Amino acid sequence: MHPAELIERKRDGDHLAPGELSAFLDGYLKNEVADYQMSALLMAVFFRGLSADELTEMTRAIIESGRRLDFGDDGPPAVDKHSTGGVGDKVSLVLAPLLAEYGLRVPMMSGRGLGHTGGTLDKLESIPGFRTDLDLDEFRRVVAEVGCAMIGQTPQIAPLDGRLYALRDVTGTVQSVPLISASIVSKKVAEGIGGLVLDVKVGRGAFMEDEASARELARTMVDLAVSFGLRASALLTGMDEPLGVAVGNALEVRETIECLSGGGPADLREVTLALCVAAVMGAGAATDDAEARRHLEALLDDGSALDRLGRLIERQGGDPRVVDQPDRLGAAPVVTDFTTPRTGWIGALDAREIGLAAVGLGAGRRALGDEIDPTVGFEVLAAVGDRVESGQPVVRIHARSGADAEDAALRLGRALELTESEPARPPLILGRVDAAVR
Amino acid sequence: MHPAELIERKRDGDHLAPGELSAFLDGYLKNEVADYQMSALLMAVFFRGLSADELTEMTRAIIESGRRLDFGDDGPPAVDKHSTGGVGDKVSLVLAPLLAEYGLRVPMMSGRGLGHTGGTLDKLESIPGFRTDLDLDEFRRVVAEVGCAMIGQTPQIAPLDGRLYALRDVTGTVQSVPLISASIVSKKVAEGIGGLVLDVKVGRGAFMEDEASARELARTMVDLAVSFGLRASALLTGMDEPLGVAVGNALEVRETIECLSGGGPADLREVTLALCVAAVMGAGAATDDAEARRHLEALLDDGSALDRLGRLIERQGGDPRVVDQPDRLGAAPVVTDFTTPRTGWIGALDAREIGLAAVGLGAGRRALGDEIDPTVGFEVLAAVGDRVESGQPVVRIHARSGADAEDAALRLGRALELTESEPARPPLILGRVDAAVR
Repeated sequence: MHPAELIERKRDGDHLAPGELSAFLDGYLKNEVADYQMSALLMAVFFRGLSADELTEMTRAIIESGRRLDFGDDGPPAVDKHSTGGVGDKVSLVLAPLLAEYGLRVPMMSGRGLGHTGGTLDKLESIPGFRTDLDLDEFRRVVAEVGCAMIGQTPQIAPLDGRLYALRDVTGTVQSVPLISASIVSKKVAEGIGGLVLDVKVGRGAFMEDEASARELARTMVDLAVSFGLRASALLTGMDEPLGVAVGNALEVRETIECLSGGGPADLREVTLALCVAAVMGAGAATDDAEARRHLEALLDDGSALDRLGRLIERQGGDPRVVDQPDRLGAAPVVTDFTTPRTGWIGALDAREIGLAAVGLGAGRRALGDEIDPTVGFEVLAAVGDRVESGQPVVRIHARSGADAEDAALRLGRALELTESEPARPPLILGRVDAAVR
Repeated sequence: MHPAELIERKRDGDHLAPGELSAFLDGYLKNEVADYQMSALLMAVFFRGLSADELTEMTRAIIESGRRLDFGDDGPPAVDKHSTGGVGDKVSLVLAPLLAEYGLRVPMMSGRGLGHTGGTLDKLESIPGFRTDLDLDEFRRVVAEVGCAMIGQTPQIAPLDGRLYALRDVTGTVQSVPLISASIVSKKVAEGIGGLVLDVKVGRGAFMEDEASARELARTMVDLAVSFGLRASALLTGMDEPLGVAVGNALEVRETIECLSGGGPADLREVTLALCVAAVMGAGAATDDAEARRHLEALLDDGSALDRLGRLIERQGGDPRVVDQPDRLGAAPVVTDFTTPRTGWIGALDAREIGLAAVGLGAGRRALGDEIDPTVGFEVLAAVGDRVESGQPVVRIHARSGADAEDAALRLGRALELTESEPARPPLILGRVDAAVR
């Protein structure tokens, strides 16, 4: 394997022979292929893509760079959900205990906030004492005992992905459908699950702003996951405006608790149920989607899924009293309302701008290593399609200071669009991508 | 300047604003931009190209990374020629003393053999004692005294080009018209010349195998050189078969001496004269091309250009007696003929294969640091379009051993194509690219 020659052939659109791409990646792991050669190849892949065989080979090489768990078939189906990232997206926190309560196992590895989007780990860590850094053996024990566990990436799983992602991040090679797909699916396969549901967000606050790109990503990831034996499907869900009301870590945990108590915003409940139904059906744990949905709704409404969250929190070192006493999550010192400048219809509440405003408050990181304030964030009190009167509160700001709140209000002013006529309410679920029939 | 963001914008086909690309290159020189970011940008440039402004800015940054000579206007015009590389291409060795004899100054910086192509420096160094590593002050003195000087690249001129080329070589980003153009033109501008003639080779043995690509490269380089105030033009010349008879370093110096004595192969004389006429006309040293040509021919035929070569050799430390006694260049121990297997017409004598066969004999380097044997090589005794009888010698092999000669003969067998009917003789000069009228 001659690295420069392989890069040239990929650059020229050649189909690499079996074994070539994995030899290149293997050379990279052994430091025989340099970072500058890997980044050139990644840029060539950005332009030329990867064939299905090449993508599978790359994904396998990433999986094999680390440990591979296997939850096996001697127990309930093990499933996971992955979202491409959004604003106000606390679905994982509801879904994991809900599916565990349904009878599945949910070994979930999540990420931190990235850019304007929030991260499940940051949300969990707003629960006092909650540990997301369990080692893999402990992770498996928690799954066995509670039915679900929620931890961060560990260097034992797919370490090559960590190296590649760090390189992509500084070389303009993040936004590539095959590279994103290999990164996500490799980690999910290495988790040892049997079923995967993908939530591919579409819209202003999503990684993929248009539906066609989102569908392409969903199709690529589903096919790739299936090629590794996973039962996989994807939903395309809207991310023009935030999901639910709460944006910000502790605020989102509060909303999670509401949702797990049978309440909470309708859109959050709807997206969560749709993803859970897909997971349950995909895992073969139900054959009738309406029945599965009724069962899942009952587990929300009767509080049993919330109990499961309490057990999970306790088992992972957190204070389980938060599920009954959410005030234990703390509160920001300054709470003010952002109001509408005039009467009209809400035409847009730009999720990206709102996410960036939340980062500005301290709910996310501007640079690696920044401290997060778990208490700050927003409650988005209106939605696209709502009629609002002049001076009506649209967003409740939770800030560390009045100055922070004023900065946030300026950004929110850019996020809000008022229209003269009633706009269409954007669909919550835009579509679904299933495994190709073989 | 945020490196990853700039890479992304180039990747997406944005036109970079003035100053952005030079800031990136400047950051690279200061090691603030990493090799892996530069290689990603170079790959993005491979796919997206560079606008004329971007190309000029990149070229300027390369020039400004080192010293810039200036031969100025107080003296005869200073000109140079650059060839994109071929097999048997000893034109520089004839052209430099011939143009000096004509009255121009020729400060020439050349390269070494690369792949299957020969290099002017390697050819010059087959002359006992000849030094190509003069420093820049000595270089200028030799030009002042002899009218021409021939040295290698120095790290004082365009050092950024050296770093970029080394990176391109191992990252599959060599074959890019703008990157090639910036590399060549930056060094020629930094030489301080006022006129440049480009010999863009076309054919099997050339970097550009088809005429359209060669024309694109020629047009880009001419326009770029003109944007730096050079009077520039390019000829497209054929490189399907070797130029002249001799391939190999000392053999090519012998042929140079023949050509400078008014003899030598007709094709070598023709291409050299065409390039010299272009240089003389471009420099404003003649206004009638037929007259310029007659003058140049006279300088070949009366031996005065050969005398100039002798003075150049002596001034650069070489043994000037070689011009009268070429046997002093040495000879290979084994000389055998490669003959035709059957009677027919010569349809092809593949320059690339012949060049690779010469490298196999030791006339070039397979790896950096390989020793070159100046005596080995070929005399290509026939040309495309010639009628040959079965058993007729086509190539005389000069080798270190019988085994080497046999290996070479095997490769020559692949280079030779015989046809049943008389093929067209390929044109020597395919076209010309001049500066755009402003």
